[in-house]
Amino acid sequence: MICRSHFQLYSQTRFRFLSISSAFVHNFNPIPSFSTKSRFRQPTTLIVRNCSSIPNSGSITAKPSSELRNKRKNSELDDKLRRLRELFSRPNINIDAYIIPSQDAHQSEFIADCYARREYISGFTGSAGTAVITKDKAALWTDGRYFLQAEEQLNSSWILMRAGNLGVPTSSEWLNGVLTPGSRIGIDPFLFSYDASEELKEAISKKNHELVYLYDINLVDEIWKETRPRPPNKPVRVHDLKYAGVDVSSKLSSLRSELTDAGSSAIVISMLDEIAWLLNLRGNDVPHSPVMYAYLIVETDGSKLFIDDAKITPEVINHLKNARIELRPYESILSEIESLAAKGACLWLDTSSVSAAIVNTYKSACNKFAGGIASLINKNKTTINGEPWEPSAINKSSPVCLAKAVKNEAELKGMCNSHLRDATALAQFWAWLEDEISNGVVLTEVNVADKLLEFRSAQEGFVDTSFDTISGSGANGAIIHYRPDPNRCSTVDTEKLFLLDSGAQYIDGTTDITRTVHFGKPSSRQKECFTRVLQGHIALDQAIFPENTPGFVLDAFARSALWKIGLDYRHGTGHGVGAALNVHEGPQSISFRFGNMTPLLKGMVVSNEPGYYEDHSFGIRIENLLFVKEVDTPNRFGGIGYMGFEKLTFVPIQTKMVDLSLLSTAEVDWLNDYHRQTWEKVSPLVSGSARQWLWNNTRPVGKPLYGLGA
Amino acid sequence: MICRSHFQLYSQTRFRFLSISSAFVHNFNPIPSFSTKSRFRQPTTLIVRNCSSIPNSGSITAKPSSELRNKRKNSELDDKLRRLRELFSRPNINIDAYIIPSQDAHQSEFIADCYARREYISGFTGSAGTAVITKDKAALWTDGRYFLQAEEQLNSSWILMRAGNLGVPTSSEWLNGVLTPGSRIGIDPFLFSYDASEELKEAISKKNHELVYLYDINLVDEIWKETRPRPPNKPVRVHDLKYAGVDVSSKLSSLRSELTDAGSSAIVISMLDEIAWLLNLRGNDVPHSPVMYAYLIVETDGSKLFIDDAKITPEVINHLKNARIELRPYESILSEIESLAAKGACLWLDTSSVSAAIVNTYKSACNKFAGGIASLINKNKTTINGEPWEPSAINKSSPVCLAKAVKNEAELKGMCNSHLRDATALAQFWAWLEDEISNGVVLTEVNVADKLLEFRSAQEGFVDTSFDTISGSGANGAIIHYRPDPNRCSTVDTEKLFLLDSGAQYIDGTTDITRTVHFGKPSSRQKECFTRVLQGHIALDQAIFPENTPGFVLDAFARSALWKIGLDYRHGTGHGVGAALNVHEGPQSISFRFGNMTPLLKGMVVSNEPGYYEDHSFGIRIENLLFVKEVDTPNRFGGIGYMGFEKLTFVPIQTKMVDLSLLSTAEVDWLNDYHRQTWEKVSPLVSGSARQWLWNNTRPVGKPLYGLGA
Repeated sequence: MICRSHFQLYSQTRFRFLSISSAFVHNFNPIPSFSTKSRFRQPTTLIVRNCSSIPNSGSITAKPSSELRNKRKNSELDDKLRRLRELFSRPNINIDAYIIPSQDAHQSEFIADCYARREYISGFTGSAGTAVITKDKAALWTDGRYFLQAEEQLNSSWILMRAGNLGVPTSSEWLNGVLTPGSRIGIDPFLFSYDASEELKEAISKKNHELVYLYDINLVDEIWKETRPRPPNKPVRVHDLKYAGVDVSSKLSSLRSELTDAGSSAIVISMLDEIAWLLNLRGNDVPHSPVMYAYLIVETDGSKLFIDDAKITPEVINHLKNARIELRPYESILSEIESLAAKGACLWLDTSSVSAAIVNTYKSACNKFAGGIASLINKNKTTINGEPWEPSAINKSSPVCLAKAVKNEAELKGMCNSHLRDATALAQFWAWLEDEISNGVVLTEVNVADKLLEFRSAQEGFVDTSFDTISGSGANGAIIHYRPDPNRCSTVDTEKLFLLDSGAQYIDGTTDITRTVHFGKPSSRQKECFTRVLQGHIALDQAIFPENTPGFVLDAFARSALWKIGLDYRHGTGHGVGAALNVHEGPQSISFRFGNMTPLLKGMVVSNEPGYYEDHSFGIRIENLLFVKEVDTPNRFGGIGYMGFEKLTFVPIQTKMVDLSLLSTAEVDWLNDYHRQTWEKVSPLVSGSARQWLWNNTRPVGKPLYGLGA
Repeated sequence: MICRSHFQLYSQTRFRFLSISSAFVHNFNPIPSFSTKSRFRQPTTLIVRNCSSIPNSGSITAKPSSELRNKRKNSELDDKLRRLRELFSRPNINIDAYIIPSQDAHQSEFIADCYARREYISGFTGSAGTAVITKDKAALWTDGRYFLQAEEQLNSSWILMRAGNLGVPTSSEWLNGVLTPGSRIGIDPFLFSYDASEELKEAISKKNHELVYLYDINLVDEIWKETRPRPPNKPVRVHDLKYAGVDVSSKLSSLRSELTDAGSSAIVISMLDEIAWLLNLRGNDVPHSPVMYAYLIVETDGSKLFIDDAKITPEVINHLKNARIELRPYESILSEIESLAAKGACLWLDTSSVSAAIVNTYKSACNKFAGGIASLINKNKTTINGEPWEPSAINKSSPVCLAKAVKNEAELKGMCNSHLRDATALAQFWAWLEDEISNGVVLTEVNVADKLLEFRSAQEGFVDTSFDTISGSGANGAIIHYRPDPNRCSTVDTEKLFLLDSGAQYIDGTTDITRTVHFGKPSSRQKECFTRVLQGHIALDQAIFPENTPGFVLDAFARSALWKIGLDYRHGTGHGVGAALNVHEGPQSISFRFGNMTPLLKGMVVSNEPGYYEDHSFGIRIENLLFVKEVDTPNRFGGIGYMGFEKLTFVPIQTKMVDLSLLSTAEVDWLNDYHRQTWEKVSPLVSGSARQWLWNNTRPVGKPLYGLGA
C-alpha cells in the first residue's frame, strides 16, 4: 500500500527549489496541515467503516440516499456548527475561530472513532482534512484525492478549500483574511504537534491574532456528548518474546544509554507504535494497527505508562512489573510532565511529534521552577550521536523510531512466516476469484475484498487487515487511495484491469501486497504500462548499493523504464513496514522526496511499489515487501558493506500482462526465478484448486525468439 | 575531466546526515577551506607549469634534485617565513597570525602566477591548500589527493595538516588551540568570500580572537617584491556574435529585468567567466580559461567594467561603448562600491562568491551614509523569483551563472563544431600513438600529452588546453587528478592501462574527454571494471527524465553496474561545461551530493564520466560531454516535458576493453550506434592513418552467441 505521506501534489511540488533551505521542506508536504515539519507519518483522520457485504447481485449503482435524508443530515450538520459557535463566547473560552484537525493526540494514521472530530463536525469522511470554523464561516481543506468526495459530503454551510490548487489560501492565510486583526483562534493543544502549533502561531501573528490553547475542553467533544463513541478499552496483550526477539528490559536499557549520551534524563514517547514496540505489547484501540492509546515516559531510573487501566490484564501487569514500569492514568500525563520539570528533569522531546500540550506544559513548568536545573534540551543545543538536536529538523527520528525500524532476526522470521501464510490465503483467493469470474458470477469490488478477508481470517495468527483494502476495477484502479463504497462500487469483470492492494496484521507480522490482473484480454497499452512498472519493480528489487545510502537514491531506478516513454507516478516507491505493527512506519522511505536522509539499514523492511495510473481508465501497481540485507559482493570498495533486498512477498505476478519483448533477458530471468521461488515456498501450504492456480501462475515464460528488446 | 568540487573525502562524508540542516552542507566540502558555503567552483590555487617535453629516452626516473639544492630551497623558504613574520609587528598591521588561502579575488579555478601566494610562501604546488602562519608556527592544510606531494614539498618548518583524517583540526580549530585568547588573526579580505570570512570570524570568536582585515597590504606580496610575476596584461578579444548568439545589450537587458524583479538597483559580478560571458569578451589572463581579471557592476541604468586598460584594444573599446559600458581601473572597485552606497544603491551581492572586501566596504559605507535608502538586499530578505534570497544558501546561483549555463543555439553549434575538430585531432593522435607503441618507441606520459597538444594546436580555432592533461599510465591512472611530472613520470606501454583525460579551448567551444585504453592484452579484471564503467556511462547517456529533475537524481544510474559487484568511484559523475569558457561551471551537476537542486535544463552541457580506480594498479574513466535536450516521448505524463541527452563527443571507445557477455543487447546496440555516428561525423574530417584508425575502431561488435548476460 502506498504510504499516504508519499502521495504528492506532484507536478506542483517536485524539484522546485534551487537551493537548500528549510523552505524546501514546505512544498513537499501534500496535506493541508499547519505543520510543514511533521514526521513521515502524515496526520490523517481515517475513519474506518468495515466494507460491509452486500448481496452478490442487484442494482449496485442505485443510491439509497433520498432528498429527505439529505435534508435531515444537512440540518443536523448546521445544528452542530451552531452549537459549536455558541461555545465560542463562553467566558473561559472567548474565541473567534476554532481549528479542528484530523489528528488524534498521537499523530496516528488510523484513529479511534471517538477522536474523529473533524468528520463529526463536517460530515466529510476523507482521511485528510482540516476544518476551520469562525463565527460566521466554516471551511474545510483537503487535497486532490478528496475533492469529489468532499464536494458530495459537505453541505452548503461549508466552503471547500482545494489545497494545492492555484490561488487557494492555506488555512492560516484564510484566517488572516477573514478575521479582524487581533482575533483569538482556539485549538486543542493535544491535537497539534508543538512544531505545528508554533508554525501556526507565527503565521497568524502577522495579523496580530492570538493562538488560544484550550487545554480543558475540546469543543467538538462538548457538543458530541452522549452520541460520541466511548474511547476504546479492549484488553492489551503481551507480544510474545519469540516474535519480539528482544525483551523489554533490554530495549529500555538501550534507550537509556541513548538518553544518557544525549544528556537528557527522560524521554516522552507519544507515538503509539513506538510504545507498543518498546514494551512488547499490542493493543486493539484502532483498526488496522495493533496499538493502544497511551503515553510512555522513560527516565534513566524508571518508566511510567499512561493508559486506561481497564485495558490492562493481570498478564500485562506482570509483564510491566518485570520491566519496572509503573502504571498511571492516561489523563495524568500533563501533571507528570510538571512533576518532572519540578524535579529538574531534562526531557528529550521530539517536538515534531510530541503535542503542544506536553511541550508547553513542560516549558511553563520549567519557567515556574526556574532556578532548578530543568531546561529544554533543544535550547541547550545538545547533540545526539554527534548531530545537533534541532527541533526544526524534519524526520528527526526518535531513537525508538529507528530501533523499531531495524528488525531483529525474530522479527524478520515472523515477517517471513506471516508472509507465507498470507501468500496461502492469496493463492486461495485468486483461484476462487478466477473461478467465479469464469463462471460468470457478478462480483463487486467490495464482495471481492470481503472474500479476501475471509481467506485471510482463516489463517493462523490472523488479527486484522493492515489497512482498508483498495479493490479497484477499471478506472477505480487509477484512484490511488480508492476505497470502494458498497452502495455503488464497480464490478470486477473480464473487461477491465483489476488492482488489489491489501494487507493483514498477523500475530507475528504485517503484510502489504498489490497485484494488478486482467481476467480477459488486456490491451497492448495496458501491457506496455504494466511491463514498464514491472521493470521498475525489478530494478529496485535487484538494486545493490553502498551502505548508508538513503532510500531516495534508489527511487529513480523504479521510474526509469516509465520515464523512457514519458510516464511516471505521483507517489513514493517504498515505505517502511512494522513487524506486527503499523503498515506504514519510518524513518526510512524510497521516494523522490530528497529530505529524508535516513539510510536503508540492514533489517529494515520496505515496500517496492511502483505504479502507473491513467485517469478515468486504469491503474497498475505491483507491490512486494522487501527487507534490507548485506550482499556478499565480490568487492567491498571503500571498505564498506554493500546492501540489497530480500523478498518477503511470494505471490505470482500475472504474466499475461507482460510484454516479453520489452524485457531484457535478465528481467525475464528475474520473473521466472521469482515464480520458481514462489512455487517452492507456497505450494507446500496449499492444495486443490489453489495449488493448481499456483502451478499455472508460476510457470516460466520465455522471451520470444524474435525478441530483441533487451 | 572531473570537476574538483566533485572530488570527495568520500567514505567519510557520504550520506552521513539523517536530517536536513544546513550542517550537512559542511561535510560535503572536501577542501580545507574556511568556507563551507562556497560555490560549486571550489577555490583552488592551481599553479600551471606547461608539461615541458623531455627527450624520448633516458632515465626518466632519476631525480635531478640534490642535497645541496634542497638545502638552498629550504633556507629560502625559511627566509620567506621570517620576513613575513617581521611584518606582523608593524604598527599598522599588528597581528599574531596570517592566513594565506589558495584563491585569487574571484574564486577562480585557474589563477595567474602573481596570485599564487600560498605556493610562493610554502613551496607546496598542489591546487588546494591553505597556509596558516603564526609567530612561531606554520601549518598547511590540504586533502588526500596531495598528502604525498605536500610531504615532499614542505620543509621541516611546516606542519602538514591532512584534512579529513581523523583528529586533524580545521585551521580555525588549530588557531584557537595555539594562540593566546584574544589574538589578532589577519587576512587579505579580497581573498575570502564574505561568507567564508564570516564563518572564520565566528569560529575564532570562541577564543575571543579578532579577525583583522588587511585591505591595503597583502603580506606575501610585500615580501615577494621584484620576483613576483607581473599581473597578466594580454589583450582582451571580442567573442564573435556568431559564437555568442546573443549580443551584450540583450544580455544586459535580461539581467536588468532580474535586478528589477529582485528589487535591487545594481549587481556586483566578480566571477571572471560570468563577466566574459555577459560581455561577449574573452581574455588571456589565466591558463586554460579564456577570461580576464575584472569586476563588473551592472546598474539599472549603466554598467562599469573594472579592468586594467592595458588589456583593452580599440575593438573592445568600441564593443563596450555599443553596450554603454564604461571602463574603470581594476583597483577602483572599492571606491565605486562606496559611491554606490552613498547614492543609495541596493546591491545584489552573492555573498558566497563576492569578497569580504567588497561586502564589508558596502556595509560600512551604508552605515556611514545611513539615512539614505541604501541597505543590504539580503538583510531585507528580498525574494528572487519568489525564492527567499538567503546569503547562507549553497549554490545560490547568480542570475548570470544560470543564464550562462543554458546554452543558446549558436553556443551549442559552436560546441558541436569544436567537438568535431577535437575528435579529428584525437583520431590523429590515437592513430599516431598506437603506431609508435607498436613500433616499440618509448613514450612518457608527458611526451604523449605534448603530442596531443601538437595535434590539437593544428586545429582551426585552437586557443589553449582547457586544463592540465591527465595522462596516467598504469597505477597513475588511479590518481584522479594526476599530473605527470616530466622528470619522473611513467611510460605508456603495452603492459598497462592508459587513462587520458584532456580538453581544449577553441574559439567556438570547450572540450573535455577521457578515454581509457590498453595497447596490449587487458586482464579480465580490467575488462570487467571497464565494462561496468561503460554500462554506467551508457545508462546515464540514455536516461530520460521529467523536466526539472536535478542532476543528482541521475547519479545512481552511472554507479549501479559497479555497485552490483561492490565497486564505486569517489567523484561526481558530471559537471557543467562552458561554451568557449571554463571547463568547469555550474550551477548544475550530476553527483551524489544532494544539496544541488538545480534542474538539468534544456541547453545545459554536462560531462558524463563514471570511473573506477584501483589504488596502485589502474584507473578507468570514460567521459563524453552531453547537452540536455527535450525528448519527444510518446507520452507526457503530468503535462510536462521529458528530457534526455545528446552527445557532443565523438571519439571511439576501445571495444577491446569490453566484456561483451556482461552487456545487454540494448547496451551493445548503444555502443555500435555510437561508433556508427562517430564514423559518419568524423571520417569526412580525417585521412590516411587517422581515417584507417577511425575505421578500425568504429566497427560494430556482436554479442557472443552463447552470451546470456543481458
